[in-house]
Amino acid sequence: MKFLFKNALIYTSGELKKDEVAVDGDIIQGVGESLDFEADRVIDVKGNILMPGFINAHAHTPMTLFRGVGDDLKLEEWLFEKIFPLEEKLSGEDIYWGEMLGIAEYVRAGITTFEEAYYSIPDMVRAIRKSGMRARVCIGPHPTKKLSEKEYISQWESELKLMGGNISPVLYAHSIYTITEEELELMVSFAKKHNLRLSLHLSETLKEVGDCTVKNEQTPPEYLESLGFLDRPCLAYHCVHMDKDDIRILADYDVSIATCPSSNLKLASGIAPVYTFMQNGINVAIGTDGAASNNSLDMFKEMFLVATLSKASLYDGSIVKAKEVLDMATKNGARALGLEKVGEIKKGYKADIILIDTNSPHHFPKNDLISNLVYSAKSSDVYLTMVGGKILYENGKYYIGEDIETVYNKSKETITKLLTF
Amino acid sequence: MKFLFKNALIYTSGELKKDEVAVDGDIIQGVGESLDFEADRVIDVKGNILMPGFINAHAHTPMTLFRGVGDDLKLEEWLFEKIFPLEEKLSGEDIYWGEMLGIAEYVRAGITTFEEAYYSIPDMVRAIRKSGMRARVCIGPHPTKKLSEKEYISQWESELKLMGGNISPVLYAHSIYTITEEELELMVSFAKKHNLRLSLHLSETLKEVGDCTVKNEQTPPEYLESLGFLDRPCLAYHCVHMDKDDIRILADYDVSIATCPSSNLKLASGIAPVYTFMQNGINVAIGTDGAASNNSLDMFKEMFLVATLSKASLYDGSIVKAKEVLDMATKNGARALGLEKVGEIKKGYKADIILIDTNSPHHFPKNDLISNLVYSAKSSDVYLTMVGGKILYENGKYYIGEDIETVYNKSKETITKLLTF
Repeated sequence: MKFLFKNALIYTSGELKKDEVAVDGDIIQGVGESLDFEADRVIDVKGNILMPGFINAHAHTPMTLFRGVGDDLKLEEWLFEKIFPLEEKLSGEDIYWGEMLGIAEYVRAGITTFEEAYYSIPDMVRAIRKSGMRARVCIGPHPTKKLSEKEYISQWESELKLMGGNISPVLYAHSIYTITEEELELMVSFAKKHNLRLSLHLSETLKEVGDCTVKNEQTPPEYLESLGFLDRPCLAYHCVHMDKDDIRILADYDVSIATCPSSNLKLASGIAPVYTFMQNGINVAIGTDGAASNNSLDMFKEMFLVATLSKASLYDGSIVKAKEVLDMATKNGARALGLEKVGEIKKGYKADIILIDTNSPHHFPKNDLISNLVYSAKSSDVYLTMVGGKILYENGKYYIGEDIETVYNKSKETITKLLTF
Repeated sequence: MKFLFKNALIYTSGELKKDEVAVDGDIIQGVGESLDFEADRVIDVKGNILMPGFINAHAHTPMTLFRGVGDDLKLEEWLFEKIFPLEEKLSGEDIYWGEMLGIAEYVRAGITTFEEAYYSIPDMVRAIRKSGMRARVCIGPHPTKKLSEKEYISQWESELKLMGGNISPVLYAHSIYTITEEELELMVSFAKKHNLRLSLHLSETLKEVGDCTVKNEQTPPEYLESLGFLDRPCLAYHCVHMDKDDIRILADYDVSIATCPSSNLKLASGIAPVYTFMQNGINVAIGTDGAASNNSLDMFKEMFLVATLSKASLYDGSIVKAKEVLDMATKNGARALGLEKVGEIKKGYKADIILIDTNSPHHFPKNDLISNLVYSAKSSDVYLTMVGGKILYENGKYYIGEDIETVYNKSKETITKLLTF
């Protein structure tokens, strides 16, 4: 289908400009002042903002099912007494509906792409494909269900075959404290053979860093470097507790970082040194983490936190500026996920587009709409979400392959069943 | 007018309960299972949440005009090069429209009461009264326009006469670094004579604390105590940089604290020790501060931050729980502002009521709606805001005494004029 967006204030690469955008199939066919383009549907943006959809660089989407289960607990209690026992009981069908609920939340909030780190790959892929979302899906060793080297290779190769279209794969180690040295080394060789990138949780908590230092006499980045893990392009989630030497190691390799501030605050992990990452030239993207720990999948919340936590922790209001944070949430995310022609509004790029309504009190008097996007806009301002040229959300209506009421009801049924099992 | 809210999930004092609420005039006439009440209008809440409106315990409402002016600057540059020069030019009419824009933002976000610390009292009072909002308005010495003792008393007495109805007064010192010792002492005697409470910004930045310690050989709380300022009931805004001794001083007096986390982050002031306040039995309320520094007047954003910043800064996910934060944003706020029968849904209380829609992905699967209110709800979930029995916002429509488009246009005209002066 062909779309023409008219009267749009287009945000891309740090600027706002009045322009038109033409979409043909899944591609942005043109951006310009008055395009000669015959569209099936012309959308009058009425001076509102048109921008690239957000790229959520770290998520466990089906954990939407656990939203609000076990809040206000210490991390270990939350994880071992609440989350792990529930995860044990999850069926493939449960995962599917949890994934769909998270996708509904994504499209409502203008997220068009996400990195998915959870289990039961075929069920997640089924939901993602049905919805039309763009995602990079993690395959790799499970933190508790261990297999032989041969079994791993066979499983990962069969999972790779599920990918394609809007879904790309990444090889994922949950973390250095759940995945053995042998498994990490196996991942590196598998990644080389299949030309895959790597992802993992890294230096998320003080405990992780302390335990690693005691066990290996190395910090987590030093440990990964010694195993050759960093020789592949990597995406490291969280990176809360890193000193200058750790950060310099990451900067020496092709490593991106997905910072997840709301999860780090709520789980009491700490505040990541985002400004130092930037000063070292590291590509910083932003993730929501799962809804069990943050508790809503909202890049506006995360952007506000990235910008302001950095300011407060270094006592300098001038660092980590609005434009830099918008880049993190869009094009840096695409780079972190190894996605080409995604994350900007440019000719030839994927048509992953959102529209942001600016007719609410919190946008006035419209002194600086770029600043508003980071500091005062809300996910509810998103009124249209398009992924690959398909509208997945518009003005309260969801087009994600399942009826929204069914998604709500299934999610309630699922968690009720799990909690009363 | 008489209202009956049916099928409501009522939040008050830490619990959710299915009930009805009857409103007669400006008062909650009853709360119960099936009230025998003849209403002019019956509102079916359809199982959504009915709760007390939020109480914003620290605001400079007309600064909505400056939203996005001078973001990403160092505090001194922001204040001296951007904000102060603009404030110099503000007319009474400008203040009126800035106040109205802020009020629109408040009612959209479920804020029903606020503490107003700004200048040009008659214009602010005119807007507040016209809108129907509840407010406590600050009168007191101006940080730069100094008067004689006689002039102050005459001005404050005439400003007191403007109060009444939904508007109550408080005597306000901007801060210890802008108000002289003589002015502070005059305030204490005036407050005693007129039975007024006191408010001020306190220990907001490291610079304020350092300067005070050098100048007076006392921390800011010690200095206030020595002047007898704390002998009156007080509300202290911010309180970011306080050690244990400072906090114990405040705990010894009738002092409430308005914590303003988003402003403290964005202006790079730091993170307030909220948990320590609570452990010392201090009444903690929540403020947004002004839109020039935070940049949206949204108690949901502030609640999330209060709960999670405390967790992260003490590395304990179990402290400062959702219910405690909801209290801070409602009934603790009423106590901080010296307002009786406000901030709870109880018979005989003021009918300051908001309705929260829970039919969005970020509320499902509705495992714990109290947790959702703090950790995943958004101000856009508010669909009805009632103050003193009058509906000021409902489903996209504003009833604040001025047409919303006029408010938008006037705010744009005003700031355009100020910036091009």
